[in-house]
Amino acid sequence: MMHVIAPDRGIEAAVRRKIDQKTKPVGALGQLEALALQIALIQQTEFPELRNPHILVFAGDHGLADEGVSAYPAEVTYQMVLNFIAGGAAINVFCRQNGLNLLVCDVGVRGAFPENTDTFVKFKIRPGTRNMLHEPAMTAEECQAAMDAGRTLVDGVRHRGCNVLGIGEMGIGNTSAAALLMHRLTGLPLDACIGRGTGVHDDALKHKNRVLQAVADRYTHLTAPLDILAAVGGLEIAAMTGAYLQAAENRMLILVDGFIATAALLVAHRLEPAVLNYCVFSHQSDEQGHRAVLNHLNVRPLLNLGMRLGEGTGCALAYPLVASAVAMLNQMASFADAGISEKNNEGAMG
Amino acid sequence: MMHVIAPDRGIEAAVRRKIDQKTKPVGALGQLEALALQIALIQQTEFPELRNPHILVFAGDHGLADEGVSAYPAEVTYQMVLNFIAGGAAINVFCRQNGLNLLVCDVGVRGAFPENTDTFVKFKIRPGTRNMLHEPAMTAEECQAAMDAGRTLVDGVRHRGCNVLGIGEMGIGNTSAAALLMHRLTGLPLDACIGRGTGVHDDALKHKNRVLQAVADRYTHLTAPLDILAAVGGLEIAAMTGAYLQAAENRMLILVDGFIATAALLVAHRLEPAVLNYCVFSHQSDEQGHRAVLNHLNVRPLLNLGMRLGEGTGCALAYPLVASAVAMLNQMASFADAGISEKNNEGAMG
Repeated sequence: MMHVIAPDRGIEAAVRRKIDQKTKPVGALGQLEALALQIALIQQTEFPELRNPHILVFAGDHGLADEGVSAYPAEVTYQMVLNFIAGGAAINVFCRQNGLNLLVCDVGVRGAFPENTDTFVKFKIRPGTRNMLHEPAMTAEECQAAMDAGRTLVDGVRHRGCNVLGIGEMGIGNTSAAALLMHRLTGLPLDACIGRGTGVHDDALKHKNRVLQAVADRYTHLTAPLDILAAVGGLEIAAMTGAYLQAAENRMLILVDGFIATAALLVAHRLEPAVLNYCVFSHQSDEQGHRAVLNHLNVRPLLNLGMRLGEGTGCALAYPLVASAVAMLNQMASFADAGISEKNNEGAMG
Repeated sequence: MMHVIAPDRGIEAAVRRKIDQKTKPVGALGQLEALALQIALIQQTEFPELRNPHILVFAGDHGLADEGVSAYPAEVTYQMVLNFIAGGAAINVFCRQNGLNLLVCDVGVRGAFPENTDTFVKFKIRPGTRNMLHEPAMTAEECQAAMDAGRTLVDGVRHRGCNVLGIGEMGIGNTSAAALLMHRLTGLPLDACIGRGTGVHDDALKHKNRVLQAVADRYTHLTAPLDILAAVGGLEIAAMTGAYLQAAENRMLILVDGFIATAALLVAHRLEPAVLNYCVFSHQSDEQGHRAVLNHLNVRPLLNLGMRLGEGTGCALAYPLVASAVAMLNQMASFADAGISEKNNEGAMG
């Protein structure tokens, strides 16, 4: 297996100079300037391009959902994947609007789907994870197979010319798995990692806390990231972890979605810390815990709109800002181009 | 003159029901849901549309710039307008990217421009304001003429089918005018309203504070919003105030840009409080004072990217989110459409 290598920073000074010479005060485009630099470093050019952007959505069910940890019944995972295929979900709408290609992948949904299409791929490892309250959610082999599915999808879109992708998920019960992963991989207290998910009310939230505490107690002996992922993760989460690793190995730009997406990234980050160099954090989710995990990673998201939907919707909504950063770098005039005066009492703008 | 009237809320319950029946947990799209409701109310339909979106940029010079309150020389206003005309500025890049029509209007730049074009209109009231340290920036007549220019431009784009517009500005020295307006119209202390603008350093910031305090002291006797606007505003700021009022009278959706744009809105808001119903706050600027004025208005911006460029760039960058809110309302499937199960242990989703 390859390792994830941080981009060479040899061109950093030249890129910063290029940005500082654009017709604006130095730093006046804030986070877009940092984003432009990051993308230039990933692509190792002062003239980066975003090509054939994709959103990959991995779907899987959770045995733990049988414990009543979600506001919705488990069959909603299956029904929502049909909604993705039919084009009616939020992620379909935002992908169409922003010119993104959507590819949905079943790695573990309970229920049979129609044939593969341009936007739907079957890669089912098993119909939902096992109930982690009683046994590990996945065997090591199942977990690896799910990660490989994520890697395969990423390589597939890369071969179609894609160099930027967002990674989303659908899986009733997966805020529970994500909370457990976050707790074990950040060391933050479990109750700081648990939120309302799709919207459990107070009593159900207490129940969710009790169930997740029991699960956490069961696996305290595990310490290796992949062992923890197999025990308390999910098939779609493992696929996302594999997808991040493959995308970073491929030196693609990665848009990270919300709470579950960030939990999957924690595993990838533990395995290959340099993966963060390839990540743009698209938004801060309203799910309790997301802010803390973003702080743990010391990263700042682009958006903070109080969203908590998943599906890669944060990635799809943030994509135009990423495209703006690239357009700024490629298209804005410099002070010299435009014949504009320099700052008072100072040397060159750069 | 017409008055600005708040949209009738008769359809509010129906719009909320429509949003809540979309295939997502209730509230899971956060601020986009509030935005969709706002636009539906403005257009008085459950099926709103954004048509022929525009960014209007008003440009004008400031006599006060002669006091050295900006990091850039005053001729940069003229040079940047030429940059807008040539298509090389940040606002050009972001408008092209997001499918927005740009219209730049000279209401008071020092310097002569070439002929009007599709994207540039001459409406010069005078070549820069007077130096407000010594006399009011504008006479009442000049201020009114600038407001009328803003109104005329808005009506012009409306007649070309536009129903959504962002309003931006260019004017070396205009964070000083904006700080003074903010101080007088919010009652916040002057030094909480003054920031670095395009980037003055520490000594220059102290100088800017001293100059602005002297200006503020000169006009404490004025209390009417239009008198304050004429005394310490700017031609481009007055044009923006007129543009907001006309757009709200026309029931158009208004994207508000950063610090200077919000200061101009304070005047419109004092004259016609209902104007706020038509406003979407595109971003929180990094200019000190913007956060406080947004809090004063009790509004939450869509973006917070550490930007401080003006030109309407915040509006252009936020526009795709506004389009997403509308697309969500029009295109997402409902639970019934998609045959998806309702929440556990509860009644209908709505």
